[in-house]
Parts: sequence; structure tokens; C-alpha cells
Amino acid sequence: MNAISTTTRKSMMLFSGRGFPELADEVARELDAQVTPTSIYDFANGEIFVRPELSVRGTDSFIIQSCGASINKWVMETLIMIDALKRASAKRITVVLPFYPYARQDKKHRGREPISARLIADLLKTAGAHRLMTVDLHTDQVQGFFDGPVDHLFAQPLLTDYISEKYGTEDLTVVSPDSGRVRTAERWANRLGGKPIAFIHKTRDPLRPNQVKANRVVGDVAGRTCIVVDDMIDTGGTIAKAVQEIMHAGAEKVIVAATHGVLSDPAAERLSTCGAVEVVLTNTLPIPPEHQFPQLTVLSIAPLLARAIHEVFEDGSVTSLFDV
Amino acid sequence: MNAISTTTRKSMMLFSGRGFPELADEVARELDAQVTPTSIYDFANGEIFVRPELSVRGTDSFIIQSCGASINKWVMETLIMIDALKRASAKRITVVLPFYPYARQDKKHRGREPISARLIADLLKTAGAHRLMTVDLHTDQVQGFFDGPVDHLFAQPLLTDYISEKYGTEDLTVVSPDSGRVRTAERWANRLGGKPIAFIHKTRDPLRPNQVKANRVVGDVAGRTCIVVDDMIDTGGTIAKAVQEIMHAGAEKVIVAATHGVLSDPAAERLSTCGAVEVVLTNTLPIPPEHQFPQLTVLSIAPLLARAIHEVFEDGSVTSLFDV
Amino acid sequence: MNAISTTTRKSMMLFSGRGFPELADEVARELDAQVTPTSIYDFANGEIFVRPELSVRGTDSFIIQSCGASINKWVMETLIMIDALKRASAKRITVVLPFYPYARQDKKHRGREPISARLIADLLKTAGAHRLMTVDLHTDQVQGFFDGPVDHLFAQPLLTDYISEKYGTEDLTVVSPDSGRVRTAERWANRLGGKPIAFIHKTRDPLRPNQVKANRVVGDVAGRTCIVVDDMIDTGGTIAKAVQEIMHAGAEKVIVAATHGVLSDPAAERLSTCGAVEVVLTNTLPIPPEHQFPQLTVLSIAPLLARAIHEVFEDGSVTSLFDV
Amino acid sequence: MNAISTTTRKSMMLFSGRGFPELADEVARELDAQVTPTSIYDFANGEIFVRPELSVRGTDSFIIQSCGASINKWVMETLIMIDALKRASAKRITVVLPFYPYARQDKKHRGREPISARLIADLLKTAGAHRLMTVDLHTDQVQGFFDGPVDHLFAQPLLTDYISEKYGTEDLTVVSPDSGRVRTAERWANRLGGKPIAFIHKTRDPLRPNQVKANRVVGDVAGRTCIVVDDMIDTGGTIAKAVQEIMHAGAEKVIVAATHGVLSDPAAERLSTCGAVEVVLTNTLPIPPEHQFPQLTVLSIAPLLARAIHEVFEDGSVTSLFDV
Amino acid sequence: MNAISTTTRKSMMLFSGRGFPELADEVARELDAQVTPTSIYDFANGEIFVRPELSVRGTDSFIIQSCGASINKWVMETLIMIDALKRASAKRITVVLPFYPYARQDKKHRGREPISARLIADLLKTAGAHRLMTVDLHTDQVQGFFDGPVDHLFAQPLLTDYISEKYGTEDLTVVSPDSGRVRTAERWANRLGGKPIAFIHKTRDPLRPNQVKANRVVGDVAGRTCIVVDDMIDTGGTIAKAVQEIMHAGAEKVIVAATHGVLSDPAAERLSTCGAVEVVLTNTLPIPPEHQFPQLTVLSIAPLLARAIHEVFEDGSVTSLFDV
Amino acid sequence: MNAISTTTRKSMMLFSGRGFPELADEVARELDAQVTPTSIYDFANGEIFVRPELSVRGTDSFIIQSCGASINKWVMETLIMIDALKRASAKRITVVLPFYPYARQDKKHRGREPISARLIADLLKTAGAHRLMTVDLHTDQVQGFFDGPVDHLFAQPLLTDYISEKYGTEDLTVVSPDSGRVRTAERWANRLGGKPIAFIHKTRDPLRPNQVKANRVVGDVAGRTCIVVDDMIDTGGTIAKAVQEIMHAGAEKVIVAATHGVLSDPAAERLSTCGAVEVVLTNTLPIPPEHQFPQLTVLSIAPLLARAIHEVFEDGSVTSLFDV
Repeated sequence: MNAISTTTRKSMMLFSGRGFPELADEVARELDAQVTPTSIYDFANGEIFVRPELSVRGTDSFIIQSCGASINKWVMETLIMIDALKRASAKRITVVLPFYPYARQDKKHRGREPISARLIADLLKTAGAHRLMTVDLHTDQVQGFFDGPVDHLFAQPLLTDYISEKYGTEDLTVVSPDSGRVRTAERWANRLGGKPIAFIHKTRDPLRPNQVKANRVVGDVAGRTCIVVDDMIDTGGTIAKAVQEIMHAGAEKVIVAATHGVLSDPAAERLSTCGAVEVVLTNTLPIPPEHQFPQLTVLSIAPLLARAIHEVFEDGSVTSLFDV
Repeated sequence: MNAISTTTRKSMMLFSGRGFPELADEVARELDAQVTPTSIYDFANGEIFVRPELSVRGTDSFIIQSCGASINKWVMETLIMIDALKRASAKRITVVLPFYPYARQDKKHRGREPISARLIADLLKTAGAHRLMTVDLHTDQVQGFFDGPVDHLFAQPLLTDYISEKYGTEDLTVVSPDSGRVRTAERWANRLGGKPIAFIHKTRDPLRPNQVKANRVVGDVAGRTCIVVDDMIDTGGTIAKAVQEIMHAGAEKVIVAATHGVLSDPAAERLSTCGAVEVVLTNTLPIPPEHQFPQLTVLSIAPLLARAIHEVFEDGSVTSLFDV
Repeated sequence: MNAISTTTRKSMMLFSGRGFPELADEVARELDAQVTPTSIYDFANGEIFVRPELSVRGTDSFIIQSCGASINKWVMETLIMIDALKRASAKRITVVLPFYPYARQDKKHRGREPISARLIADLLKTAGAHRLMTVDLHTDQVQGFFDGPVDHLFAQPLLTDYISEKYGTEDLTVVSPDSGRVRTAERWANRLGGKPIAFIHKTRDPLRPNQVKANRVVGDVAGRTCIVVDDMIDTGGTIAKAVQEIMHAGAEKVIVAATHGVLSDPAAERLSTCGAVEVVLTNTLPIPPEHQFPQLTVLSIAPLLARAIHEVFEDGSVTSLFDV
Repeated sequence: MNAISTTTRKSMMLFSGRGFPELADEVARELDAQVTPTSIYDFANGEIFVRPELSVRGTDSFIIQSCGASINKWVMETLIMIDALKRASAKRITVVLPFYPYARQDKKHRGREPISARLIADLLKTAGAHRLMTVDLHTDQVQGFFDGPVDHLFAQPLLTDYISEKYGTEDLTVVSPDSGRVRTAERWANRLGGKPIAFIHKTRDPLRPNQVKANRVVGDVAGRTCIVVDDMIDTGGTIAKAVQEIMHAGAEKVIVAATHGVLSDPAAERLSTCGAVEVVLTNTLPIPPEHQFPQLTVLSIAPLLARAIHEVFEDGSVTSLFDV
Repeated sequence: MNAISTTTRKSMMLFSGRGFPELADEVARELDAQVTPTSIYDFANGEIFVRPELSVRGTDSFIIQSCGASINKWVMETLIMIDALKRASAKRITVVLPFYPYARQDKKHRGREPISARLIADLLKTAGAHRLMTVDLHTDQVQGFFDGPVDHLFAQPLLTDYISEKYGTEDLTVVSPDSGRVRTAERWANRLGGKPIAFIHKTRDPLRPNQVKANRVVGDVAGRTCIVVDDMIDTGGTIAKAVQEIMHAGAEKVIVAATHGVLSDPAAERLSTCGAVEVVLTNTLPIPPEHQFPQLTVLSIAPLLARAIHEVFEDGSVTSLFDV
Repeated sequence: MNAISTTTRKSMMLFSGRGFPELADEVARELDAQVTPTSIYDFANGEIFVRPELSVRGTDSFIIQSCGASINKWVMETLIMIDALKRASAKRITVVLPFYPYARQDKKHRGREPISARLIADLLKTAGAHRLMTVDLHTDQVQGFFDGPVDHLFAQPLLTDYISEKYGTEDLTVVSPDSGRVRTAERWANRLGGKPIAFIHKTRDPLRPNQVKANRVVGDVAGRTCIVVDDMIDTGGTIAKAVQEIMHAGAEKVIVAATHGVLSDPAAERLSTCGAVEVVLTNTLPIPPEHQFPQLTVLSIAPLLARAIHEVFEDGSVTSLFDV
């Protein structure tokens, strides 16, 4: 007998970084599973230590990490977790980053800039990630930065369904807060049933290129319920100003909707005082109590992640989940 | 004497694929140089043969190739040229692709699609290209697909200067032919001195998603000279329709401007009959006589390429050339 | 419960490029399977689009492509298909190229030439191919160009069995059309039962090196049935001339046999008029009606490919298939 | 004229991360140069932006970064700086990390641990670093983690010269604070002129393996001036306890010497109260005022770094600098 | 039916190089398996030929090789075996090197030295090894040289159990033969129940750095049973001298214990005459009859290797095997 | 002043392995240079140590190694030398292997064989070689195994010039000792002025495939001076038998010529007694006194290597050297 032979089984394990463990737990519950216990802590000088407490040999491993406030720390933690799983003989490692870090640095705006979004993809690959799962990338092209399969999930249906149910009977206009995301607004408008769209046009004086001369609303908003849509809200400056412009242009009511609530200061203050009646986000990132405000609604992304992870593990089709 | 020592010189050589040798010659003239003689021909079954006729050992080599009609052939030819130069000990190989092939397949629009623009970047790298030079990428993110330096040149100043001089005194509106390129229109508008912008909004019926229900012009065009801008014109369908919509919406006059004249059939027919008074392109791609038409103006990109190649060879700054 | 566990199954899927879909269908029938429906078409400017219509996640995928006339196009199509499957999470991708493109450019004949056969291997690897299957390489060394397993199948038994059955009782001599393939002729001769061999010797004048001074038949052919053997027939020039030389040297009858029928113009004309009584090929490449001629016999390679694919999928032994 | 030819010059540029810009400035002064002005700042959500303000094309670039307190942030910043320089066509990138981050995680102490020191080396390589320069690695083997040249500089001569001058006439014993660094103590002892050595032996109860049963001083320390040596001092726990044990064992006087002053809390308190008369460190890491204390002496590593950078740029010999 | 589907089985195969086939056979017996028959022989000029005699397609392959006397030959043989298995479509290749070759060249002791231990790891990876299994590395950091999972097994328990049983009732001191392995001695001391430790301190004259001035025993050995421990014994010079120093310092009895018996000449002579009552080794390397001597005891490593291979194949936990 | 700038010089250094230092010295003399002094020795267990004794930083390094009898040892030594030079910051490393080791294992003759010639190329690349220089590869395709420039030099002119001068007035026939090298014989024949060729045809009985039934001389040899040509002579069996067959077929005189004198036992005996009047070789490999014999003539390859190295260093053209 020259070969020892046996039937094959495959096992899935979930791991969570410290960026947003509650989301990982929620995903695990949806999957009727548990997050694998893992020692993760900082040494005195900030170096991160990671060690899964169970054997991961041969498993199909999913690392869920939300890169919120201490973003560089969570990126490094993710890389170290991948390294630990790789060296511990995990069979396949999928990194689940609901919010892709550095997604906005996806090109050189000027000479000598880094393309950090590509760098992140290469670092994940180098550490040992085989696959990537993420939600609503700032630009779709970031998928192409990773040398391997990327499951790019869309939160838009989650958001449009909510908006549709709550405001669907009103006269809606979808508004892009700037000229770069009019396509996104158009996708929203179509999904909401062929609504009109508008956007804010920033005029710059060619002699003073870094300064916006005037903002103009292009498209009809007067007397309508406007949905300002974006992929993420960081400090909320652009969004808050857009809401004000739209109100100023005669809108009846303004709602803000976005997938990623980065909400860096002073986003909470700006959003709560800009005049929007509701701000709808998902929980791809943790929103600490001090960043919450009365008009805020947070929809959970966990069921979408759980379904996608399940399909990936079972070799089912994820396309059905993320086709718009 | 253990080491033999000598001073170092560096040499630049230009090579041209068969995609558009006239452009390479024009670049060479601008540089006061010559394209290096190279045997390139097809074997009977279509396999391409390449051999530089002079020693390229230690040179800083630039391969200029325009991937027009037989696009896959020119891509393969480029890869084979790189391989020949690499194995012949060229020191550094820069591929100059004024029109980046497959730039539009830069993301998965739906599941299971390739990301061919990334693939192209990887193929160039694998063949042995160290650097890439290109003009007006369909999306800026494609820069991040290549694992190395990319000199991304902008033809917009060339085009706007021309428009400015010829139509600068009229009441201009810059129009994006669809929702995805409003940002580009905004950049044009700013460079032309803070002009208003508009775009064509395609409404889709959510029940029949692959069909456009109606096109709406968003923004003011009535009575104005409209510049429809895009990065490339392929079959001209979208552009021609946009021109018609704008005229229908009361525009005084319409001019079309784009960097890349792909001009697949029936572009020439559509553009010459759509009502535009002038169509301005650059020669990043060859435009054969049968694709030319009376309203067409072609500006040469050769001086820009030549200046960039010169700066790259001399370790000067290219940033000054491509900062808007 | 920290890990979700399940038994593992594996699935095989066949894909076909547009180079020769009939061959892929024939292979599928042999395997009692179907080629997976896939959208493949050209955009107006020649860029190729590919999208499998079913989920390929976790599958053992085989792409069958015959690189005939539009050879560079089919190479690019193959690369794009690999990219699509890789990004769609196919588990393993085997590229089946019955005719390996650019196999003849397997070395630098002179300085500064490319080694395109190695380049092709690297491009396939870069795109994401894990394994390669091919038939009768121009030189066996090309196997070593691919960094991974290569199943190199031999069509010779198919051809010799046919010859043996039809001409086995005659006085056979195996003839190599030039000095570089005498070994191949010897293998044929041995398999046909220890037959004598001959070859055509091209004498060159050292003062005019690119010109053949005279062709001489080395070995006995007078009064015998001669089988001229080669791996491929391209324009048929060498083969047709060899047939004539052999007839001139007194051969009774000449048959031509080769694996790959490239048949670039004017091969059909040359072969049909050179004096050979039969030309035997396999269908590793499509032979369009206009390239066919009365003396042509085409044997199907599909059963051999199907058996090899089956063994690869089942982890059986392919060696038995390709040991001579 | 087929090639344009010119003589070659090479230029060196220094860059500094935000970890310890004063050290980079000191190195620059030693080299009679300046740190290249560079925009580096955090976006609101912590993402780092980097852009050199001058052209770096073709330069021999040195990035100096000290990874102190916010260690993960400085690692990410270093990677992003490398990416920016790589994409801006710097010819060669040397990363100067006087303190190598994660150097202590250089092996799996138990199963399933990461080897973060190797990960760091791979991340630097992936980002685009060609070479590495560092000082007194925790273990010399970390050199082998980087796939490229590493200039491993030794600060020990700096420290021993200081000790020798100040305490050379006393009866010295060199003490290793634990069993793992006795070799280091031996190297010190030899360099100080053949002094005796000692170390602290931690006895563990095999039934309670994670608990130290007792510390024993092995070697003669009674009545002597003891130099406790280590590569780094983090929280100072081991060192402070060692000082106390040695004093308890009858030492006349204790001095502490180490290369890297990590000095995480409560190091300053422990070191200032442990009984050591002097604590000698170098400035491979910044020591903020709140971590300083009366017994602390800091020697500058800048001259050593400057000399090494100079030799690397000039293709001189660095070996002379780091041979002990 | 687009996909053919079947259940998956996995098979393990063992292969043995010619370095120490008896060990591989012993491992096979422990696993109730057989070493796969493989043709391995030298051509006349020393080139090695390898060919497994059975199909290895899809198997989980383990190559067992002990790199004893003809160390470079066995390294090359291992690389060629990996290549053969890779190209024959083995699914996963684990190289089992009980003694890691070149482990001592794990850093640059001086400038311009190679780091051959890293080179070996890279060569194994390049040839196609996915995983590595080894025993008692000279330094633990070598694990980090391999870019993939390393199962680092510990033979220490095997040795300490033997010592404990035979000498456990005596007054034991664990002695490191030099300052660099005191940590190892401490680990032994703890495992033997908290025994005292000692080491040999080599004093060097700073004026004649390559010459040892004097050896001093640091720690208590007088009247005690001393266990001199090391990872390997090569020519036995250091060990034999250590035994003599310890006896000279009044030890009652000396035993030597090490994992790897390299035993280059004149190790056998030195060890048998140095005064040690017993020398305990394992069989990670073959010990030919001419290198054996009366005081030698050899413990078998085969059961440990077999258990580890079994766990790796079954995706069990190896950590339990190698946690100390 | 942000950048320090200086003119660039380049230096060449020669290094020699221990395989054939006399050849390296001869090459150095031709170049009016010296081989760089390097410590190379074996440790007691056969591990090789290498260290250049001078700084190699920034140099264009050439390692000359002839892989004769202890072939695996010399391969490992070459890899270790490359590693040492790479880590010591040599700028470019060219490996000069006049005889490429394992060149004959350039394909899988049967399933499950390694392709060791490709493996060697990958190992050299992994260790850090940028370029390769070699002489008369067994098959030209091996050039394509290395991922980088290969200078493939031809010794044939050296040999044919010698033959031409000495035997040019006689009636020459060039003979290939087997069917696989008839092309080589044809190249010789053409270079000698259009001489006739012949070869030995081995007939195999298909029922006993591993046994040669009969050897037949194909072509005219009777009464002529025959030159038996091959790329290498290993044990001399095929060559000696060929000489005998040719003499038996009535040849007047037989001369043997080959580039590589591997000369494994019993080559010297066979060649000296086979009947050849002269055996002409080059010194790509060392020929120890015990392998020499009266009929042997050895031509020096050193001038050719020296000229090629000089051209590579000076960025001249090597093509002129190796075009036939």
C-alpha cells in the first residue's frame, strides 16, 4: 500500500479583529456559528500580538475586520492575523473588510502621490490573503487592485429598499453631492423607479485653482424630497454643504444616505445641524455613541456578509447577491 | 587590480510597433532622434516576429505603440517587443501606449467578468516592462493596475487651449454625454474659466433594466455653444445621440471634443451627420482616411509624448507636464 | 461550535474559446458533458469580452482553445478567459491548447530575438493558469517553459496506427523533411516496426549563407513507399519540396503525415499538387473548407484530449496516455 | 543617429517619516544635506497622505523612520512613503529603520503565532524597498528575513567606548539580564578588555510553567561595578529586577546600557528607582521629555547612520563600519 | 449538465531521498504505510535522476531527506524530487528535513557573507515545496526564512525524558558549552525540574580577537552530574573541550546530549576520549558504523516525525506535539 | 540643497568558484584583470562557506564556475556565491557557466520526470543572478528557461577553424552520432564549406523497446575523413561506437570533435582505443591528468568568454560573437 487515502471534509472558521467585534459576532450568529477565540493584544510599545486558540489547519478561514478610527493599527492587525493563519496552515484565507481602507487614495491626483489603495491590496496578498470581500468600494476599479478573487458586495439595495418603503410615495430627486458621483445617483434613481437626478457643481476660478468660487445645483430640486447619496461620509463637510445648497434651492425635505459612516469629527455635529431630516447609514464601520445623533438610522450589513460568506464557503454563487 | 572601472553613459532608444509608426516618427523628430530600425513581420500563420537591428544592450528603451483596430495583435506585438528587448539586455524598458487597450474593462460590472485592464498591466510587467506611459486613461485608477511607475499624461490642455482660442468668446456650456463623466466636464468647465456644465441623464425602467427609457438633459444648454467632452469616441453612438439631445434642447451650436479617436464603424457617419459643427480629437490612435470626415480636426499628441520621454530619460520632472 | 464542517465535492467544467468550438464540443461529448455556456464577443474596436453564464466557484475548469488563423486574437481571448475564471473563484484552471502558439519561436536563432514560446507560457501563468495541456510540441523543451504541470500528449500513435493499417504491408521508409527532425523520423520508424529512415540535407554555400545551394536525399528511398513526417505543416513549402525530391530520387509513393495542420496559404495548393498520394493530419486546429483538398485525411484528436482531461480531473495517471 | 547618449550622474535624497524628524535632520546635517520637503499628514479618519514636494526621479532615496510609540502608524507611513517614491520613479529606495519594528516576534514561540518580523520585511519589499538599514537587531537572523541587502549597523562600540572611558578603571562585570543574551554580554566583556560575565537564571517550576520560581545570579558580581546590557529596554521590568538582584548579590554599583530606548510606561519610573547609577541609551527612538529621568544618558546614533548612508551612496564599504 | 461532479478523497504518499532511507522506512512503518518506490540514481557525471514509479497526481506528498555527509548532493536531490512531484501534479508537497542544512549560516557574522539558511528556504520554495517540517533548528528564527508553514518539531522532550529516567535522582547541573546557548540550557534545566545551570565563558584578548584567551566555567558544577546540552555536535571540538573544563572544575560525572549527530571527523574520537560517560543523540542524521563509539546512545526520531506527518495530513493539531 | 549629486562610474569584478579556477584566471588575464580574492572552503560536514575579501558594493560582478565532477557541489557553491554578492550589494550579477549543468534533463522523456535544466535556471534566478552566460547548450531551448538575458556563446567556430586548418584539404564528411543531432552536423558541414553529412540510425525492435536492434550508417562515409561531432562527450559510449561503425563502413579516418569534455569514466579509455585519430575538445570543463590521453587536443574557450564579458560590461554587442 503506497498511498494512505481518506475522504475529505472542509471546515469554515470565522476570525475577528478588534476593529468591530460586534459586527463579526452578528455575522457569526447569522451563520449559526461562533467567532474562533483568538488572543489579540498590544504589547507595551504598541506591537500587536495575535494567536488563534484553536487549530486552524486546513480550514477555510474568514477574517472580519472593520477599519475605523485607528485605521493603520487595524490594517496592521489584519496583516498579522493573516500571517498567523498562513503559518498555521489554514487552507484558504478570505479577508472581509466591509470598509476598504485607503479606498479614496486610488490614483495619483498629482505627480508623486502614492496609490495607497493598491498598496493595501498588495500588502494583503503578501501577508497571505487568497481572497477579499468588501462592500461598496469608493470606486469599482479598486477590485482590480487585488491579484485574486474579490467579492464586491453592494449595500445599495439595503439602502434603497429602506428609502423606498419610507419615502417612496413622495416626489423624489436623487442628488449627488458633487460631479464625481452622478453615476451613483443615477443608479439610485433607476432603482427607485426612474427618478430625476441632480448634482452640485463646484465652479473654480482658474486663477485660484484650489478655491471653490461657487456651488451651483444642477437639476430640479425645488419642492421635492431630495435624497443625497454617497458611498461614505467622513467629516460630513461636503454632504452638509450639499444639504444646505439643496434646501436653499427650494427642496421640500432632504434625506442623506450612504454606506460607510466614517463620521470623523465634526461629522455628527454637521449632519445633525445641516437640515437633513434623516441620515441613513450601514454598520460597515462601528459608530461609537459620541458620534451618534438623533437623525441617524443605521441598517445592519451583517446579513449580507453572512450570506456571501456562506456562498463562498459552499461554492455557491455570490453574483446573485451583488448584481444590482 | 581587482576591479576594472570606467565612467558611465546612458543612451536612449526609440522603438515603434506597427500600430501607428507615423506617430513614433513624429515623436522621434521632436526629440531630434530616430526610431531604431527593427524587423517586424507576420509569419504565414499570423505569429509575429520582432528583432531590433542594432544592439540595445544597456539602453533606456521606449516602445511606442498605438493599439488601434487590430487591437489584440498590437498588444501581442508589444509584449513580444518587450521580451526581445529584455532578453537583449536593454537596461530599462518604458512602454508608451498613448491609448491604453482594454481601459474600459477596468472593473467587474457583473459577477464573473474579467478585469482586462488589470490583466494588460500584468502582462506588460511579466513580459518585462519597467515603466508605462499613457494618455488620458478612461479612469485614473488604471494607473494603480501597473506595479511600477506610470506617467499618466493629460491631453486636456491641448484640447481646451484649442477650444478656448476658437470658441472662447461664445457662451459655452460643457456637457457630459452621460452621468459617469460629469467630473471630466467639470474639469473642462473650470479650465475654460468657470463655465456652466450639463449632462445627459439616462432613465431606466427598473422592470426592463437593460433598456433606456428616456434621456434627459440636466443643466442649461438652450441658446449656448455646447462642448460635449469625453475621453474617447468609439462607435460614436452615445456622443451623436447626446449632440442631438442638446440641439433638441435648444443649443445654439455643438462641438465635440475627445482625446482618443477609436472611431469604429459607423462613427464617421454618425459624427458627420449628428449636427456637431466640429469634432476635435488627438492622434493617440491612427485615423485612416476612410474614417475621416469634414468636421474632424486632429491635434497632435507627439510634442507632449516627446517632452515626457525626454524628461523621463533625463530624470527631469514629468509632473509639470501632467499636473492640470 | 467554532468551525462549520461539511464533506467536499469537486466539479469539472469545460470552457471553449472561439478558435475551434466544434473540437471543444466533440471533447465534451466524449466526456458525456457539455461546454459551459459563455458570453464571448468582440466590442466594436476589437476588444474581447468574456463572461461565463454559470457560477464557476470552486470548479476544476478546463479551457479548450485552438489558436488557428487569428492567432494573436485567440491568445488574448484565452488570457482573458483565464482572468475571468480566476476572479470568479474557479479552484483550478487548466488551459488546453492542442496547438501551442508560437512554439517555433522557442530560442534565439540570432541575437536580439524574442523567445515568444516562453513568453506565452509566462503570460498564461500570469493570467492565472495552473496547468497546461497540449499536443506534440514543436520541441519537447517547451514543456519546461511553463512553471507548473504540463500534460504533453502525443498524437503520434494516432497517426502511426492509421499509417500502419493502411500502408503497413508496403516497403516503408520514414523521411524527415530536414536535418532537425531526424529524431522524430526515427521514433516513427521504430514504432512502425524498425523501418529505415532518410532525410533531406540542405547544403549551404558558406559565402552566401542565407541561400540553400542544393538539397540532397540522405538514405534509401528508391522504389519505396515514403512517409514524410513532421510536427506541423504551415505553408507546406518544405514538405512539398521534400515530396518532390523524394519522388525525384525514385520513391514509389509518398505519404505526408503531421499532427498540426496550420495550412497557411498556399499550403492547400502546394500539398494537393506536390505528388503525395495522401496527407494525414489531426484536428488540433480547425481546417476551413477552403484549405481542404482531395488527398487530405483528418483524424480526430478529441478522444485523446477527453481521456487526458478525465484523468486529470480524477487524479488518474496521464503518463499511460502519453508514454510512447 | 539611433540612440541619444549622455553621461550619467547620481543623486541622493533623504526623506523623513514623522516618527522622529529630529534624528533625520541630525543625519542630514552630518551629511551636509537637507531632508527633502515632503507633505505628510493624516486625513480626518487617520489615513496618511504623503507627497514629496520635489522631483525624485532617478534618485538614490533614503527614508529615515523611527518607529516609536504609534508603531503601527509609522510602519504604514513608511510603506506609503516607499510606494510614493517607487511610483515617482526613484531609482533605488533604502529604508533606514534604526529600530526594527516587531523584531521580537522573530519566531513562533508556540504554534499558531505569526512571525511578524518576517512579515514586516516582506511588506517593505512589496511596497518597493530595495535595501534596508537598521541598528542592533534583537536577533541577527532578522537580516535574513529581508530579500535583499541589509546594512546591519552596530551601536555597541558607541556604548562600550562611553562605558570604557567613564568606568574603565573599575572592576567591571558584564551582566546579561536573562539567559538568552549571555552571548551579547560576552561580546561586551571581550570588547571591554576580557571582563568576567554573569547572568540572571530564571528557575521555573515545571508544574507551574508560566511562573518564575526564583531568580539566581550566575557568576561573580559581589563588590564589582556591574554593567547590565541588553539590546532594548521596553517597560524596564526585566532590567530593573536584574539591577535589584545584582545589588542584592552584593554589587558595588550598577550601570545599565542598551541600544534602543523603547521606554514604554512605567520604564522611566522603574529605571530611575531601581538603583542603577546610570542608564545609557542611544537615540534610535525618540525619548519624549516625560520618559526622561535624571540617571539617563542618551548617545547619538546619527553620525553612524550618516557614515553608513554616505558609504552606501558612494559604493564604499560599510563592512568597516559594522565589523565589531 | 454543465458540470461533472464527484466526491473528493485525499491521499498521502511518502518519498525518500537517498540521504537516510532507513529513517524514511521507519517513519513509514510507524504510519503503517510504505515509501513510494522511486528511481533515483546518479548519471556518470554526478547529475541526479529522479522519477517516482507511481502516479502522484493529486496526492499530499511528503519527501523525507536527511542531509548528512554529502550535504550539497542531498540538497540538490531534494530540489529535483520536489520539481518532479510538482510537474507530476502532486497537490501539496511537504519537505521533511529532520536536520536543516546550512542552519548555522543564518546571519552575516561579518559583511559580505551569504545567509545560506535563507537561501535554502528560498530554493525549496522555488522548486515547489509548499510546507516544511524540521527538528530542533539551530536558531528558531530560521522558521521565518521559509515563506509558508513550517512544522518545527522539538526533540528535547525525547532527550530529557531519557536523561530524567536514567540520571534523574542525581544532583544535576545543565551546562551550555558556550555563551550562545545558555537559553537552551535553561529550558533543559526547567524541564528537568528546576535544576541549576552553568556555561563556559570564552575570554578573548581584544588585541588578538580571533584567539580565545581562557575558558572559564560560570556556575556551580563541582561534585555534580553535568549534562552538556547542544542542538548539534559537528566535529565535537567545543563539546569535548567543555567536558574537560567541567571535569577539571570538579564535576562528578559528565553526560552529553544533543539532537543532531553530524559527527564529522574527528568527532567520534574526541567524544569517546573526552571523559563523558554517555553521549545521547537522535537519528535525525545517519550515523555510519565508523562514527559510532561505545558511549554513544541513539534515540529514534521516527515516531515524532510519523505523528507530525499524520496530523498534517489529517489537518489535526501539530502544536500539541511541539509545545514544550 | 536637497539632493547630493555626483558622477557615476561602473566597475567590473570577476569571481571564481572552485570548479575550475585556472579557467577563471585565464579569462582574467585576457581581460587584463584579476579574479577577486574570495574565501571559499568547506566546513567539516561539507557545508560551503563563501566570502569575497573586498567590497563588491555597486559592482558589475561575473561569477565564473565550471561544473565538472562534483557537479551538485559546484551548483550549490554558485548559488551561495550569488547570495553573498546579492546581500553585499553587487549591482548586477552575471553567472558564467561554460558548461550548463543538467542541460540534458531539459524535458520530461516520460511522465513524472523532473525538468532539472529549468530548475537550475530558477535556482540561479532565486539566488539573485540577473544574467547568464554559457557555451553551446545541449539544446538551444534551455536559453528560454532563464527569466532574463542569456548570452549563449558558440564554440563551434573555434572547433571548425581548427579542423578546417588541419584537415580541410581532405574529403570530409560530417557525422552525427545519433539521429537527434543531425542539425548540428549540418551546421558543421555548411561551415566547413558545404560538406556531405551522415548519421548513425539506431533501429529498435518495437517488441523490445529499450534495446537497440542495429545501428546503421545513413549517408556516405566510405573512403572519407569523417568528423564525428557532438556538443559533449560524457562516458564516450555513443561516440566510440559511432567511430567504430564509421570505420566499419569504410571510412578512411575518423576525428571526434565536441565542445564539452565531461569525460566520465571510462571515456578516456574508450576514446583512446576506439580508432579515432584525434579527439578535439574545449576547456569548458577541467580535464584532470587521469582523463587525458594521447589523441586528445584541448582548445581554450577563455578568449571567447573574455571577449563576451568585456562586451557585456561595456554594453557592446555580443551578437557579433555568437552569430554563426
